[in-house]
Amino acid sequence: MKLLSFLWNNSVRVGVYTEKGVLDLPSTYMSIYDATESPSFLYDMRSLISSGEPALAMVRELVDKALRSGDIALFRDPNAITWLPPVLNPEKVLCVAVNYRAHGEESQAKPLDRPYFFPKFPNALIGHNQPILKPKVSKQVDWEVELAVIIGRRGKYIDVNKALDHVFGYLILNDVSMRDWQFPSKEPYGMDWIYGKSMDSSTPVGPYIVTKDEIQDPHNLRLTLRVNGNVEQDDNTRNLIFKIPELIHWASQGVTLKPGDYISTGTPSGVGFPKGKFLRGGDVVEAEVEKIGTLRNTVIEE
Amino acid sequence: MKLLSFLWNNSVRVGVYTEKGVLDLPSTYMSIYDATESPSFLYDMRSLISSGEPALAMVRELVDKALRSGDIALFRDPNAITWLPPVLNPEKVLCVAVNYRAHGEESQAKPLDRPYFFPKFPNALIGHNQPILKPKVSKQVDWEVELAVIIGRRGKYIDVNKALDHVFGYLILNDVSMRDWQFPSKEPYGMDWIYGKSMDSSTPVGPYIVTKDEIQDPHNLRLTLRVNGNVEQDDNTRNLIFKIPELIHWASQGVTLKPGDYISTGTPSGVGFPKGKFLRGGDVVEAEVEKIGTLRNTVIEE
Repeated sequence: MKLLSFLWNNSVRVGVYTEKGVLDLPSTYMSIYDATESPSFLYDMRSLISSGEPALAMVRELVDKALRSGDIALFRDPNAITWLPPVLNPEKVLCVAVNYRAHGEESQAKPLDRPYFFPKFPNALIGHNQPILKPKVSKQVDWEVELAVIIGRRGKYIDVNKALDHVFGYLILNDVSMRDWQFPSKEPYGMDWIYGKSMDSSTPVGPYIVTKDEIQDPHNLRLTLRVNGNVEQDDNTRNLIFKIPELIHWASQGVTLKPGDYISTGTPSGVGFPKGKFLRGGDVVEAEVEKIGTLRNTVIEE
Repeated sequence: MKLLSFLWNNSVRVGVYTEKGVLDLPSTYMSIYDATESPSFLYDMRSLISSGEPALAMVRELVDKALRSGDIALFRDPNAITWLPPVLNPEKVLCVAVNYRAHGEESQAKPLDRPYFFPKFPNALIGHNQPILKPKVSKQVDWEVELAVIIGRRGKYIDVNKALDHVFGYLILNDVSMRDWQFPSKEPYGMDWIYGKSMDSSTPVGPYIVTKDEIQDPHNLRLTLRVNGNVEQDDNTRNLIFKIPELIHWASQGVTLKPGDYISTGTPSGVGFPKGKFLRGGDVVEAEVEKIGTLRNTVIEE
């Protein structure tokens, strides 16, 4: 399934992306079961994920019934909805620094013996089709296509061999970065991660979460990034330095991972910084990951 | 007013700390107005702060009426409640690195031309009297008493001269740090801020938020930290390098500050790292700030 969050009639809803359009789960529930309310987890993806297998089974049944009913009133036009970050209110967004060898070379960063995580706060997240806000205080706004994971089951000190059991699904994260704030490193503290990575409305995520049953091998997905149609990044997740199980293992040291948390796996080479190319108002940025889809956003100037 | 969040009858509530005990706001509302429900913001501090002046005026009136009624059933024994982080679910917790000169000297860190912020996620926060969890993976758990601010009004690119208008109130934050994970710096990224500062249940905050009308001058407050009664830190907020208005100004560059966000102002000298002294199971840690109170927590080993 492809699960998304969207705005409709001024309310945040969970939907399922299908060939017929985006199934509006709260409306479908009330229509099919002739109910006057629908479960609150159909309005909040983090709550849906936290509610575990019975909630997900209910969603699957709603999709089956809706597709069989042929009632097209339950489906929204993907171009008519406001797409939101699939999880709007995560407790944590953990991103990993250089995790592809070629990106390490272009960034002059040597691989470490464990992944280095940096944070984003929810203020940074935007959905598919929403504008990337180029802050008025930054002249070096850069792109970074990444495969990201949504955590489905809580855990701490997670064993590498059991780590994939904690994955709910996969999505695309465009780790847009303000290089003139991220660099140079502030000694002795390091790079300025909050300014560099978590300015308002900078980070597209989505378009939806593809549940893990649909991705046989997350370590064999081509990822590309285009700016105004020109390919800037093109690599494959098989080249990740730390694989997803290792990232989950390391992210959970001392820190409980919870349903709805994001872990992003790092970006391949081809970012703008070493080329001196940065985003400007009007630029169209498409981040594509095989078997997931394309996350498309236009840059606007603050 | 001294506003806190606490657990009572399995529900999270907002309370007011008074001489008669902790006033249970939802119960008081229902009792005094003979209502069967009370406003949801009396169960959620972030929502109360976000609801602005009318909500706060309602709280003040509840306190007046309760104190005049003499109905002691509306007050809880401070020792009988579970104290929670005053804001449990902030969008952001921004802490500032070295912001007292003497701590800079003991940490071998020179002052920068702007504050350096690092993050905490909500998983790290605990309330007064709750145990500080010494993670099984860390042997160097250290204390850091700090004065912290809770944001009351949203803002971005906030002018230094108007910054204090955005403060809701003040509280204590004990920025407990896992030094063996924070250090050494991982080149070229820097210190490991998430591991070093945001492990589960590591960061006491509270005991309550003192609304800003009760603190005439936040830059003249003595702060001390005691471990098992021994004074380890003792300084005054007059020695802050970047004052609160500058911290708010800088924290809001590119990042919208929102009601309920925490900004912590940094710790003075006397932390354990340079002395080679660290926390162990059973240690009692008291972080005290003049005109606020004492935040007391006992260390337990994971």
